[in-house]
Amino acid sequence: MNTPLVKPRRGRPPKVSRDNRDTKAELIRSGLEQLTEKGFASSGLDHILKRVGVPKGSFYHYFNSKEAFGQAVIERYGSYFANKLEACLLDESYSPLTRLGNFVEDAKLGMIRHQFKRGCLVGNLGQEIELLPESFRQQLIDIFLYWQLLIENCLKSAQLSGELSKTANCELLAENFWIGWEGAVARAKLVQSAKPLENYFNYFITTLPR
Amino acid sequence: MNTPLVKPRRGRPPKVSRDNRDTKAELIRSGLEQLTEKGFASSGLDHILKRVGVPKGSFYHYFNSKEAFGQAVIERYGSYFANKLEACLLDESYSPLTRLGNFVEDAKLGMIRHQFKRGCLVGNLGQEIELLPESFRQQLIDIFLYWQLLIENCLKSAQLSGELSKTANCELLAENFWIGWEGAVARAKLVQSAKPLENYFNYFITTLPR
Repeated sequence: MNTPLVKPRRGRPPKVSRDNRDTKAELIRSGLEQLTEKGFASSGLDHILKRVGVPKGSFYHYFNSKEAFGQAVIERYGSYFANKLEACLLDESYSPLTRLGNFVEDAKLGMIRHQFKRGCLVGNLGQEIELLPESFRQQLIDIFLYWQLLIENCLKSAQLSGELSKTANCELLAENFWIGWEGAVARAKLVQSAKPLENYFNYFITTLPR
Repeated sequence: MNTPLVKPRRGRPPKVSRDNRDTKAELIRSGLEQLTEKGFASSGLDHILKRVGVPKGSFYHYFNSKEAFGQAVIERYGSYFANKLEACLLDESYSPLTRLGNFVEDAKLGMIRHQFKRGCLVGNLGQEIELLPESFRQQLIDIFLYWQLLIENCLKSAQLSGELSKTANCELLAENFWIGWEGAVARAKLVQSAKPLENYFNYFITTLPR
């Protein structure tokens, strides 16, 4: 049996002096988890604060408003996911269309790991956009446009490598890929299976003009 | 100036004796409106009851639970939308693929009429499925399966009429049509424009095997 190195304390936990940046980052991380599972309208700020151990009164020390907090969470998810996409789509050890397949595989494993409880934060918030602060709308649109640009560039590389017809409209293909992908992620969540992701991607790839 | 035919009353409105079936139908209709715009988790029962003018205490006279109410609203939407689909897809004065286009046009006009505030109730609830009573999951899946079956049958007619290759897998095509369609409806809501619906349908039609 392992003996604990430190004697367990009794009573209230000690006041850990935390760096402001750490707490802010923790709030964003916890918000990310909440919002990805529950959306914004149903995510109580109280629950997020409680999980991070921040008293409600000091929330405004970190963010000017719940709206500003939401924006920070969306921004974090946008760049987290852009990094994921870039890691797959810019990996030149694979052909461009294989890289796209690698992204789909990676996303699929992520959904399985979270038992299909988490979808796409940007997609979820897009669905409840009428309930959200109006400033979220353009932020979400811009994130989709950036993700689509990454897909578009990957498809353009596929044109150069001869995997895709030179006459294909990569911008429009990328938009349609992403629109269908959001639909497939939502369906996968509903049926709790990766099958919709697989069927959708297979369909997208086989209908590409060669 | 028009003179009112009845002298305006003062005080409390009269107790209108309403038929049970009417009130139940009104509750469902008001729920439909609320849920289509706001989803289930954020839709307060209070607000719905107030709009219909039903005191909270008598809600359970009409439904056993909020869950049963949700089920009734989903069922109503499912059959309302199936009727819409059938009206377009079974109209033999048009070719099968034109009928599919007519459905898209009709849905597009509906979204424009509601200023892109309303999406698809079944799609919206699918997104927030983790927050909902578990009984909703199968109900929503079954509705998607029925809508897809209507599309599948339309595609099979297109095979008979020579608009679609005889070797096409109509079941899989119908599933993919609907997955992409839900994505396109969500995007149209976000960008407040019919463009995603048009781009998506154009893409679907032009990639069909002929």
